[in-house]
Amino acid sequence: MYKVFGSSHSGNSYKLRLLLSQLQIPHAWQEVDILQGATRTPEFLAMNPNGKVPLLQVEPGRYLPESNAILCYLAEGTPLWPADRWGRADTLHWMFFEQYSHEPYIAVARFVMKFLPADHPRRAEVPNLHERGYKALGVMEQHLSAHPFFAGDAYSIADIALFAYTHVAGDGGFELGRYPAVAAWIGRVAAQPRFIPLEYH
Amino acid sequence: MYKVFGSSHSGNSYKLRLLLSQLQIPHAWQEVDILQGATRTPEFLAMNPNGKVPLLQVEPGRYLPESNAILCYLAEGTPLWPADRWGRADTLHWMFFEQYSHEPYIAVARFVMKFLPADHPRRAEVPNLHERGYKALGVMEQHLSAHPFFAGDAYSIADIALFAYTHVAGDGGFELGRYPAVAAWIGRVAAQPRFIPLEYH
Repeated sequence: MYKVFGSSHSGNSYKLRLLLSQLQIPHAWQEVDILQGATRTPEFLAMNPNGKVPLLQVEPGRYLPESNAILCYLAEGTPLWPADRWGRADTLHWMFFEQYSHEPYIAVARFVMKFLPADHPRRAEVPNLHERGYKALGVMEQHLSAHPFFAGDAYSIADIALFAYTHVAGDGGFELGRYPAVAAWIGRVAAQPRFIPLEYH
Repeated sequence: MYKVFGSSHSGNSYKLRLLLSQLQIPHAWQEVDILQGATRTPEFLAMNPNGKVPLLQVEPGRYLPESNAILCYLAEGTPLWPADRWGRADTLHWMFFEQYSHEPYIAVARFVMKFLPADHPRRAEVPNLHERGYKALGVMEQHLSAHPFFAGDAYSIADIALFAYTHVAGDGGFELGRYPAVAAWIGRVAAQPRFIPLEYH
């Protein structure tokens, strides 16, 4: 059985929780307390030298890091990871967009505003995070104004990857009301079978 | 015939040049002057709303952004993109590592030190870029101390993705001499058939 090392507060870990729920894949969940340095222990670094969650234990001694690589691995052979060459490439395009142009701003703004004290010096990063994050939301809005989902006009792991931090962007001070197509897409994702929200406990 | 919109100075664009050379794929190259704002014109944004190169024109009106997604698309069906499920997932793991934990530090340090004036205010970012970039090089060194290449112990698009900015990390002030396994891997990549360097003109 798969074992997932993850944090229940992390959007990157939530991507896996959502996919595992939707595909009804049995797994064990090992909660990792990032804020207490649990990804920096020798034991954890032996599993993932980059010191990050989520991490998938495929079998004892075989580990897969990187949330979006794990999504691809778990969704292989299902309708959530397109079988055709163009569909896979377009799915990956949005997943790389998420990790490079979206997560470093939208997820980090949420971290700073939700998990750090109000007088923390990292609050100074917020205006730049908002500028870059709104740019990513603008790219998403433009796409979603003409398409119901991100890749191949059907729900896929590209939507899961982008949904994770987008639907809680308000935690980081983003005003999603400015993006009606994004808001409508959030509703479509939340209406998928076996959907679970990020904050469920 | 494929058309690539790219910048000859960019490591992300170089990934495509290297793969296209190694797979001997005919293509047209359209040079895009990033520093002069050529990715911000209405014409370019109509092709890629995220305003970045490289961009692959698969056919007129059909465009694929994100360097690593393009590598996957072009390498489909070749030995450079593993055919088995685990091999693909492990390749993607290193490609997402490259875009999230490596490129934002190693490529950006190179940009600041090579392309901006010595008194530019962004020089203040260099110490942080070095700290994070050296962490990525440490993860690579650990892996390469036990494996000849990144995924499946054979040369793949994961190596191309990581090679692009690693082999010119010295431009950004990184001392690669501290990482003998990385240096040896650079030599192995440069010895591959139909290899071409980044700066060739």
